[in-house]
Formats: sequence, C-alpha cells, structure tokens
Amino acid sequence: MKVAIIGMGSVGRGVAEMVAQKKLGITVTGIADSKGGRIDPDGIDLFGVLEKKQKTGSCGNKKISATDVVKKADYDALVEVTPTNASTGEPGLGYIRQAIGRKKHVVTSNKGPIALAYKDLRERAKKNGVALRHEATVGGARMADEGLTYEQALLEAREMGYAEADPTYDVQGIDAAIKLVILANTIWGNGVTLNDVNRTGIDLLTPDALHLAEEEDCTIRLIAEAIPKKGLLRVSPRIIEKSHPLVVEGTLNAITIETDMAKQITLIGKGAGSVETASAVIGDLLYIRDRYVERA
Amino acid sequence: MKVAIIGMGSVGRGVAEMVAQKKLGITVTGIADSKGGRIDPDGIDLFGVLEKKQKTGSCGNKKISATDVVKKADYDALVEVTPTNASTGEPGLGYIRQAIGRKKHVVTSNKGPIALAYKDLRERAKKNGVALRHEATVGGARMADEGLTYEQALLEAREMGYAEADPTYDVQGIDAAIKLVILANTIWGNGVTLNDVNRTGIDLLTPDALHLAEEEDCTIRLIAEAIPKKGLLRVSPRIIEKSHPLVVEGTLNAITIETDMAKQITLIGKGAGSVETASAVIGDLLYIRDRYVERA
Repeated sequence: MKVAIIGMGSVGRGVAEMVAQKKLGITVTGIADSKGGRIDPDGIDLFGVLEKKQKTGSCGNKKISATDVVKKADYDALVEVTPTNASTGEPGLGYIRQAIGRKKHVVTSNKGPIALAYKDLRERAKKNGVALRHEATVGGARMADEGLTYEQALLEAREMGYAEADPTYDVQGIDAAIKLVILANTIWGNGVTLNDVNRTGIDLLTPDALHLAEEEDCTIRLIAEAIPKKGLLRVSPRIIEKSHPLVVEGTLNAITIETDMAKQITLIGKGAGSVETASAVIGDLLYIRDRYVERA
Repeated sequence: MKVAIIGMGSVGRGVAEMVAQKKLGITVTGIADSKGGRIDPDGIDLFGVLEKKQKTGSCGNKKISATDVVKKADYDALVEVTPTNASTGEPGLGYIRQAIGRKKHVVTSNKGPIALAYKDLRERAKKNGVALRHEATVGGARMADEGLTYEQALLEAREMGYAEADPTYDVQGIDAAIKLVILANTIWGNGVTLNDVNRTGIDLLTPDALHLAEEEDCTIRLIAEAIPKKGLLRVSPRIIEKSHPLVVEGTLNAITIETDMAKQITLIGKGAGSVETASAVIGDLLYIRDRYVERA
C-alpha cells in the first residue's frame, strides 16, 4: 500500500518511524510539513527524512508544498496529521477533501476537520468509495492533577511534549468538547457541533478545590459526558470518588460507556505521546490495507 | 432463532429474563435445570418458567432431563450455563459435545469445558460448521479488599450472590487461573492447561499484609498474568500501586493488555452479577443470529 503523510509533528514523526521500523507492507510515496515536501513513487527513505527533520526542522524541498503532495503524489491512503484548528479545520480539512476527491482513502488524527465537517466528509468518502478513518482523534482529555495550578500542569505537560499546541484547548475543555462532538457524531450520527456542548473548563480551579475534594476521598476531573436520552453534551470539572475507574493519573485517558445490560464498561489507555497516537493511525492504515487495498 | 437453555442458576435466569423482556428475535424451545426440563417447539413462556423456578426451585417436568432437551429439542443454538466443574467439565462438557454433534451452535458461560477441552471443542465445532462462543467465561477474578479476611469477604459476596458456588475457586485463585487458561488458549491457541499455571491464592493473606501495603500507597490484588515471551502463566497476590488502573473495587474486574505501540490498555467492567454475565451470553447469541442463522 502506498501512503502520503502530511504533517511532521510528533504524530507524523511517530507514524514515519513505525512505518520505517516495522514490516507493514506500506511504502511512503509523499511526505510534507508546513515548510516543504517530497514525492518519490519508488518510496521515500524515512530514516533520512526523520534525520533531516531533526537537524533542519524541515523534511523536504521548499518547492514542493503539502498541497502538491496531496494533489500529485501516487498513493492509496493519505495520512493527514497536521495541527488541529477547531475554528476552520484548516489546513487539514482542505487536504482531506482533495484526497477524497482523488478517490484516496484518508486516515487522520486531526480533530478539527472531523469535529467541524464529519457529515460532509463521510458523504464525500461514501460517494467516492473510499474509507475515512479517525481513531486517533479521540482518546480522552487532559486532567487536573496533583494539586498543581493549571499553569504548572501545563508547563509540565508541554515540557514532556504532551499538551496541545494551543493550551486553551486543554484547560478550557475545548479539546475534550471536540472529542465529545466527534464521538457523538460517530456513534449516533446526529450532526452536533461544538456549539451544542455545555462547556466549563478547569482554568478557574484552584489547589484549594482539589484539597476540599481530597477530604471526602474524592478528586476533581474534567469529564466530558454525552447522554443521548437527555440530549446532553457537557464538559465540566466534576467531583468524583477516587475509586471510580475514570480517575486515572498522568497521561492516561479513560472513557466509561453506560450499557443496558453490562452496566458501566471503562477503557483506559495512554491519551498522549507520539508512538501511542501513531499506533491509532497505523491501526487505521492496516484496516484499510486489509479491507480495501489488498482486495483491489 | 431458536434457543435451548441448560442451567437455571443466576446466569440462566438472567438470560431467560433478558430474552423474555427484549425483542431479540429469539424463541426458547427447550429449557432445563438439574431437576427437570421443558420442550416446546412453539416457544416456552419464560415468565411462567421463571415464576415456577422461584416458587418450586425447579423449572420443568421431572420426566424430561437436561440431556433430553439437548438431544431432542429443536434449536439453532444451545445456551449451556450449568455450574463450573474444573476437574471434569461435566455436565456441561457432555451437553456441549452433544449439541455440536447435532450441528447446533453453542454459547456457554461455563469455564470448565472451555478450560479443559477448548482445542477439542473448537475442532468439533469447525468440523460441524457451527459456532462455539464463550465470552461470559472470562471477566476477571475476585479481589481481596477493604482489609476483610477472606471469610468475611466471601460471606459478603455470597450474600450478594456473587461468589462462585465453590469458594475455594475464588480464594485459591483457581477461578482466575481457569480464566487465564481460557484467555491464553483463545488468543495464542497454545493448548495450555491448569497445570501450566503457577498459582498462589489469597487464602493466607491477612488484614496486616493489606495494612502494610497501604502504608506505601499500595494495595494487594490477585493478579493473573500471561507473558507469552517468557512462557509465563501466573496467578498470585501482588502488591500494586493504588493508582494503577488494575486496582478496582467491589465486583469490578479489570484486564490490562500490554501492546507494542499503544502501551498498556485497560478494560474495566462488572465481573459478576446475573444480568451482567447474561449480557455476554446474549451478545454471543446475537453474534450467531447475525452471522449464521439469519444468513441461512
């Protein structure tokens, strides 16, 4: 399977590394970041690209743009992993539409296009007979923890490469709200948007509030909730018993699904980190490889 | 789809209740417990059976045995939910073989037959072109908790209907070991048995040990581990940090999967209870309904 990768932040580099290291039957024929790109129908030397990116900050040739790669490279699936913009979805939204228009499969970790234009993109993909997959867009939300103020927590997270590029996405609950919108649209297909989410961030939380919760064997977590029966989509800091499975530490994310017969089922995993997020992208690529490309 | 249910303990009653209450397209044509059974090609009145079971302790006619139901009733899938016997697998093992021999699909919650004869049963099912499903056999293991001695914990669990019929299954880690064997055989197909499990129970644990762990912000849990690379299958009480996702309370069970790229992923859910276990049986039945029966 031939793949083009657009975006060389931590996710793009993680995907490139995994494709280079593992025998997945994937050849990268195009690659680009915001500063330039490369196209090679015979396959790009990914170790060379990663080294160049690290040394020079760019992965390709200034004369070849990301749009060139999306429009001209020969690939089966586009890996669109540019930074999230929750207002416009760009530049990822445009790349995804162009690739689908060329009847190419798309895998993205970019929450902007999926939150803003899910229904439109699904319909375009269906019309063109291609897959649109976005497992990496949803893992969970950043947590208030250890009695840190949000400035401290954010500083720490950014030093470790975890926080979103725009910190308000995390602390005002926008990142969580975007993920909630994506989940609601994916599961119920009800076409909700960010404006439908009742949202309160953690920016006004103080260590005092956490200490008060502690006294009751509770803690505070930023919880995103979707309750279809009530038409409720909400992101807010909630006081929650420490023993609840949703109370996780560090970069772990947790999601609880309330089911009819099996009651609450909780899934916990790493919600940040280059390789962990790249694993969701790779999983989507292998799905496409097995269901579409190898059958063709 | 026509179904026969063998076993009217908490799981069997839970399945019967759910089938009676929900529109699943399932008709029960045979039902039996250890005291008797019923066969009715037109469908059995499940509410009537449940009421009779509650009032008299038996669900059917003494002259019709469980074996009669398995061998003679007209059904697409057998729901085998009799009590677990880890030494012989009986009586469930025999019922399952008979049903497969009649080219009937089988769904079971019974750990004995699956732990003892998985490979044989799989081969028979394959040969006869039927499905053998056993999601309800594995949820997790009972936990040492709250500084109770095991006698106290067991008493409490039995009062709430949670503990296995034979308490040594839980406290000596046999139940956990059986589940480990089932998982290992299902995932890796390596034909291991209970004898391959290095097993230590919680029967010698004292409240003191738990208090010592508490001082280090840790607790003690009965953990079952499968590490294929090391050829290790182990069940033992382990000291574990309280913040670890595996540390769950009450009847919750947790399983952590160590993956290559996504690192640790943990799944938490209720591991006991009539309706929760029945939900796994119903899930398997719907899988068979959708993949086999409705296509036929």
